[in-house]
Amino acid sequence: MDNPDILTNVRVVLSHTTHPGNIGAAARAMKTMGLESLVLVTPGSFPDPKADMMACGAEDVLRKAIVCGSVDEALRGTVFVAAMTARLRDISHEVLTPREAMPLLAQLAAKNPVALLFGTEMSGLTNEEMGKSHIQVRIPANPQYSSLNLAAAVQVACYELSVAMGYAGLDLPENDIEPARQEEVERMFVHLEQALTQIGFFRTKAQNKLMQKLRRLYARARLEQEEVNILRGILSAATAYNARLRQSGETGKNRAGECGVQGDKGRY
Amino acid sequence: MDNPDILTNVRVVLSHTTHPGNIGAAARAMKTMGLESLVLVTPGSFPDPKADMMACGAEDVLRKAIVCGSVDEALRGTVFVAAMTARLRDISHEVLTPREAMPLLAQLAAKNPVALLFGTEMSGLTNEEMGKSHIQVRIPANPQYSSLNLAAAVQVACYELSVAMGYAGLDLPENDIEPARQEEVERMFVHLEQALTQIGFFRTKAQNKLMQKLRRLYARARLEQEEVNILRGILSAATAYNARLRQSGETGKNRAGECGVQGDKGRY
Repeated sequence: MDNPDILTNVRVVLSHTTHPGNIGAAARAMKTMGLESLVLVTPGSFPDPKADMMACGAEDVLRKAIVCGSVDEALRGTVFVAAMTARLRDISHEVLTPREAMPLLAQLAAKNPVALLFGTEMSGLTNEEMGKSHIQVRIPANPQYSSLNLAAAVQVACYELSVAMGYAGLDLPENDIEPARQEEVERMFVHLEQALTQIGFFRTKAQNKLMQKLRRLYARARLEQEEVNILRGILSAATAYNARLRQSGETGKNRAGECGVQGDKGRY
Repeated sequence: MDNPDILTNVRVVLSHTTHPGNIGAAARAMKTMGLESLVLVTPGSFPDPKADMMACGAEDVLRKAIVCGSVDEALRGTVFVAAMTARLRDISHEVLTPREAMPLLAQLAAKNPVALLFGTEMSGLTNEEMGKSHIQVRIPANPQYSSLNLAAAVQVACYELSVAMGYAGLDLPENDIEPARQEEVERMFVHLEQALTQIGFFRTKAQNKLMQKLRRLYARARLEQEEVNILRGILSAATAYNARLRQSGETGKNRAGECGVQGDKGRY
């Protein structure tokens, strides 16, 4: 493999995997394709002899695996998350085939950590997990029987990534864009939800559904750090303006729009 | 699937498979990619409950599987045999990647039976078995650890065959996303700029440059009409909230956050 940095920047995140054998088989699938960074979110049982047995020479990947208590923790530091999904629940997410998606992942992984996110065996990813991803990747399958085994899906995804990496790196365009890290984007959403609550936006609307729609919008945009700063700057400015209005209402002195108070300079 | 003849013409031949679980997992891998013709050459144990367990919904492939006493018998009637191999033993054979080989197999299978031949787990295909094949197909893998699980190799091979057959994207659903019209997006930007001006966001910043950055962000997202409605709804809610705050400041009666005025329902 020519691009070791790319390989170490790709994290395979398995969320709530029920069967330890699948974790072992996934580790083996990863290692055959040169990937070694495995992150497990509240696995059913790990470590487990069944995982070791199925790893079959890839036990080192299991030994180095990181176990997390939440998807947020697992995705910390990543700039791009591809949700592997068998179903089409969420049509406004961009749905790509592995062949379409992996060159993009390989390109991004040349500079920053990215993640392939796999859900639990029976039901796949939750809507919350989907909400933290930038694209959905669906392996084209038999419409009558589309349920790949978890490790088989890991194998196909890593295979396509490995093939894509054979070409990635050759003509990577130089750009200075700094993609936003997952935790920064999460903080922005917390900030956004607070601000929207404050102005009463959710009073007549379904809060969770709307937040999901906003997440999808910004996921598609693949926010840069500067843009997160701008958006948070807007939220800070709005909150500061409201505080001034409220204060001027209390003191009755003047109206915020006319007062000399300097606005919160925010993060931008 | 558009080409049932091609699918039935592709035979997956597993020679001397040791573990029945691998046979079941291979059947599952085949079925997810629309293949159903499984031929077993002197399997270690078959039928076997472990095979059924790993088939996980693809038991019909196992029920229809044909058990043979020799590779010759398994290959009878085929016009082309691709030997799946992890090693490079026989450099006089043509060695192709799955991506190179599968279009050829798909083409041949349009008219005649072809076979994908997989050897035993530990040592792969014998020289005799190799001698009966037309090409070697090798999945590109980590040189330090190239040993794919048998069912994982079946998955990758069948996946590439299925993509070569043109199934990719065939069962993608119709989506009813309504992209936003340019004039709606422009109205949103006018609305956004007004709201940002009102809250004093531009006071210390370069207005045009910031608006350009915001435009770029939303351009990348390729906004849907519903999303434009949501964003404008937020702007309307913010403006209405500010108006209430200002009014309560003037009348001194109460604070907008507590007042009973219904928010602007906005456009969403």
